[in-house]
Amino acid sequence: AQAILGSGHLGITHLPLPTQTWAMAEPPAKKARVEGSMTLTYFPVFAKGLGPALCAELSGLAWKGNNDTGFDLSKWQALKDTGKPPFAQLPILEVNGMVIAQAIAICNYIGRVSGLEGKDDAEFATSQMVLAASEDLYMLMQIHQPTLFKSYNTGGKLGPEENKTFWAKVVPTEVGKLEKLLAASAGESFTSSGTTVGELYLFAILHQMKLCTPGFIDATPGLLKFYEKTKSLPGVTKVLEGKSAMGQMKQYFINASD
Amino acid sequence: AQAILGSGHLGITHLPLPTQTWAMAEPPAKKARVEGSMTLTYFPVFAKGLGPALCAELSGLAWKGNNDTGFDLSKWQALKDTGKPPFAQLPILEVNGMVIAQAIAICNYIGRVSGLEGKDDAEFATSQMVLAASEDLYMLMQIHQPTLFKSYNTGGKLGPEENKTFWAKVVPTEVGKLEKLLAASAGESFTSSGTTVGELYLFAILHQMKLCTPGFIDATPGLLKFYEKTKSLPGVTKVLEGKSAMGQMKQYFINASD
Repeated sequence: AQAILGSGHLGITHLPLPTQTWAMAEPPAKKARVEGSMTLTYFPVFAKGLGPALCAELSGLAWKGNNDTGFDLSKWQALKDTGKPPFAQLPILEVNGMVIAQAIAICNYIGRVSGLEGKDDAEFATSQMVLAASEDLYMLMQIHQPTLFKSYNTGGKLGPEENKTFWAKVVPTEVGKLEKLLAASAGESFTSSGTTVGELYLFAILHQMKLCTPGFIDATPGLLKFYEKTKSLPGVTKVLEGKSAMGQMKQYFINASD
Repeated sequence: AQAILGSGHLGITHLPLPTQTWAMAEPPAKKARVEGSMTLTYFPVFAKGLGPALCAELSGLAWKGNNDTGFDLSKWQALKDTGKPPFAQLPILEVNGMVIAQAIAICNYIGRVSGLEGKDDAEFATSQMVLAASEDLYMLMQIHQPTLFKSYNTGGKLGPEENKTFWAKVVPTEVGKLEKLLAASAGESFTSSGTTVGELYLFAILHQMKLCTPGFIDATPGLLKFYEKTKSLPGVTKVLEGKSAMGQMKQYFINASD
């Protein structure tokens, strides 16, 4: 394309082409890339659904969720039996005749079609780093923190002693790495927008961790500020308050009763 | 851009434009997006390095690895102490003045700048699904399979009984899901190229699993064929044989001595 638009191989250099050739040669606009509405389906809890819901809400694209479809836990077995979810798991995003599984894949897809992927290659890379680091944190929470459905010392989840060590030692180390990455950026977020899919996914896990241990990022002021700024965005507030297409989403990671 | 190239708003419909307008309006060519060589640094084992090495090799971009930098395990502490790796972890990819951490982020970055991300939104989504599912498999291996550095029942790794159950029950279920997704595609791979970053990352984990349990995908013939076809690609063979810029990479997951 560069050869055709810019170098005159086809003899069209006489055209009054703008100087910012590539800024114009963008992919089709987001509305052209997604037909109708996207539909996100997930259990009515935060867990792996909050990140995708935030991406959907902040994408500016039309989307439907549990509030529109009436999906809840009681309908999961029937949905699973249809074979529609590719990995027999939720969340799924139905869009353009496809069914996309895996929270990360859903976020990255939405990022790509809506412009939440970062404004350039460098921001894209940063968003992807933050996304992967957030998944690591989520996995650590799955191992250490009781949930609505799983207590200490059941099915791979460790016990209360390990939980104490987790919050006292592991978490500070991990959030310290994010603080360092944030400090290396120019502003108060990891990218210029602050709302790449990686950053929204990070917010989704930070929020769930804060519900368990409210002060856990008080010692990393940059990250705390990022968290609070993101939380105050109207679209984020809407999702957290249960007013988005997903309706109410419950807290998933919980504190074990002492 | 569509208005200018295709609809004649600027009075240029007389140009002999091809019908695939968007296929032409691609971002700048990959050589324009990466200055000089990318440098991948990782311990000389497969683990989380094989996927990024495959992506680098198949990207068609110039890249350097341990073979060029002389990096090995003995140099890790010194590198870590410089603070260069953003999360104090490997792999890292140095490119365009950035340091990108997290294997998944590295693969996605390479995919974006080299065209291994899928030819359209749908293929991109499929690649991302496969990528996330591969990470799930990798994590399951970390929990169940001994490695060069960690035996059964140490630091979160389960024991030999759980390992048996893993290969007998968990793995067949997981690879069955991939077989189903593959069956839904038009060809013998998940996308038209078969070499999106998601597919290369999947191959990287399948290969490591096969080194432990050679017959583990014999019951999923589509996936086995995908594995063998990918393995036979010259660039893949080159990496596996230790002839790429990364040099020799050792087997990481091992079978425990019975």
